[in-house]
Amino acid sequence: MTFRTTLRVRFGDEDHAQMVYYPRFLHYCHQAFEDFFDRQGFPYWVALREEKVGWPAAHAEIDYRRPVRFGQDLGMEVDILRVGEKSVTFRHRGYLEREPDAPAFEAEIVVVTMDMSTHRSIPIPDKYRAFFERHLVDAG
Amino acid sequence: MTFRTTLRVRFGDEDHAQMVYYPRFLHYCHQAFEDFFDRQGFPYWVALREEKVGWPAAHAEIDYRRPVRFGQDLGMEVDILRVGEKSVTFRHRGYLEREPDAPAFEAEIVVVTMDMSTHRSIPIPDKYRAFFERHLVDAG
Amino acid sequence: MTFRTTLRVRFGDEDHAQMVYYPRFLHYCHQAFEDFFDRQGFPYWVALREEKVGWPAAHAEIDYRRPVRFGQDLGMEVDILRVGEKSVTFRHRGYLEREPDAPAFEAEIVVVTMDMSTHRSIPIPDKYRAFFERHLVDAG
Amino acid sequence: MTFRTTLRVRFGDEDHAQMVYYPRFLHYCHQAFEDFFDRQGFPYWVALREEKVGWPAAHAEIDYRRPVRFGQDLGMEVDILRVGEKSVTFRHRGYLEREPDAPAFEAEIVVVTMDMSTHRSIPIPDKYRAFFERHLVDAG
Repeated sequence: MTFRTTLRVRFGDEDHAQMVYYPRFLHYCHQAFEDFFDRQGFPYWVALREEKVGWPAAHAEIDYRRPVRFGQDLGMEVDILRVGEKSVTFRHRGYLEREPDAPAFEAEIVVVTMDMSTHRSIPIPDKYRAFFERHLVDAG
Repeated sequence: MTFRTTLRVRFGDEDHAQMVYYPRFLHYCHQAFEDFFDRQGFPYWVALREEKVGWPAAHAEIDYRRPVRFGQDLGMEVDILRVGEKSVTFRHRGYLEREPDAPAFEAEIVVVTMDMSTHRSIPIPDKYRAFFERHLVDAG
Repeated sequence: MTFRTTLRVRFGDEDHAQMVYYPRFLHYCHQAFEDFFDRQGFPYWVALREEKVGWPAAHAEIDYRRPVRFGQDLGMEVDILRVGEKSVTFRHRGYLEREPDAPAFEAEIVVVTMDMSTHRSIPIPDKYRAFFERHLVDAG
Repeated sequence: MTFRTTLRVRFGDEDHAQMVYYPRFLHYCHQAFEDFFDRQGFPYWVALREEKVGWPAAHAEIDYRRPVRFGQDLGMEVDILRVGEKSVTFRHRGYLEREPDAPAFEAEIVVVTMDMSTHRSIPIPDKYRAFFERHLVDAG
């Protein structure tokens, strides 16, 4: 089950070359990741502040396929490629309205479950494991 | 006694209009504020993390006089205009190399001394009061 | 006629002190300013890219009244305080849901109409003057 | 020949979790990339604005190995892993002072040479090819 959210590309997101500054795409991924939690019954701030669990990134890979510009909407798709013992691999794809079939960029981000009090990695809590597994992309 | 530091204007600091995005100037002010502490024997992270004292902004005013662009160095000047019971008014001015006499922008920022454990305002600790007063601009 | 839009406070908007980093509030103001144009029939990117007219900031003042945190929605209100020959004074106020009567922050930003080809200030084009005047706060 | 530069980790670079926000590491990479050009006789703004050549990212991969925090200096190392017909693969590594042997993060970024007037990819101009090849990491 793919999760979808829309982000607005902002005036300040572009850089000197008048295209979105490439580090900003990971900021889009994180915002889609926040919406993924927030809009499906698991507000991320509750996880962080009350349950003291978070998912910092351990690895990120991103393909930049087309320039993205100020004034466009980015249709973001979030899937999960793998749920491990402690880690989860998210896939984030961003689409421009005029090209609904080919993502403007695509990222894979491995996050690790962390106890935010001790800053140590921990196994994924059961309720989050079930939540993540519902978004697994089937291989077959 | 004016404190001086230099900041590099970065590729990603510009916006769609190919000038520095105006909110970024307050980020320059904060970086100059950090250098002000760090390079004069009062590392700001020590204040925040060990002494649990910080200075969040209560008010900021900024005049944007000339466009600032990627690839330029900003010569920053930091002065203090007023030291109150709990608050301090900083003045930040940024100069481009080719115009050493007229700031490209000028900001006044009122910060309040805060106990970072309780998030309540407190009187300025003595050692910081003495430090700030050394940077007061004389009116007379 | 007050314009309203809602912005989401993001995980990455906070700083070391776990409150929104104060320069980011001007970024919120600019995003509300973009929505003000975009959602009322004057897409800002069309102004900039096709009509070659833009409104860079000449002056900004901002009062920070309460801390704003990750996971909150900011209800933004945009009004216009003054329409001059070339300049316009915007007022931006941001409200947290639990305190609908007292803004968490309030900013006044003076922007100047600029020909984006020449980077020179110009009188406000008629259609934008009429648009801005509809949002003027009445003094009387 | 490895290029080295130092970046300061700023107060506003941290996020809610009081560690550097992971998208910001690519911003560090871009700043190191700018210094790589600027400090070795090829100012990046001259390439972009006068020669109309630039190197946008096509692909980025990054490993986050240790948390990086406000108040630290990041010793950045820049190497080149591959010089292609049009593309160049940069490696960026960031070191904390107390761990000089193990990078806190490591990134590989593939950039493509672009004619900034037409936004089309072009072969690497000779002077830049020679420059990049001087920084190639030897495989043997």
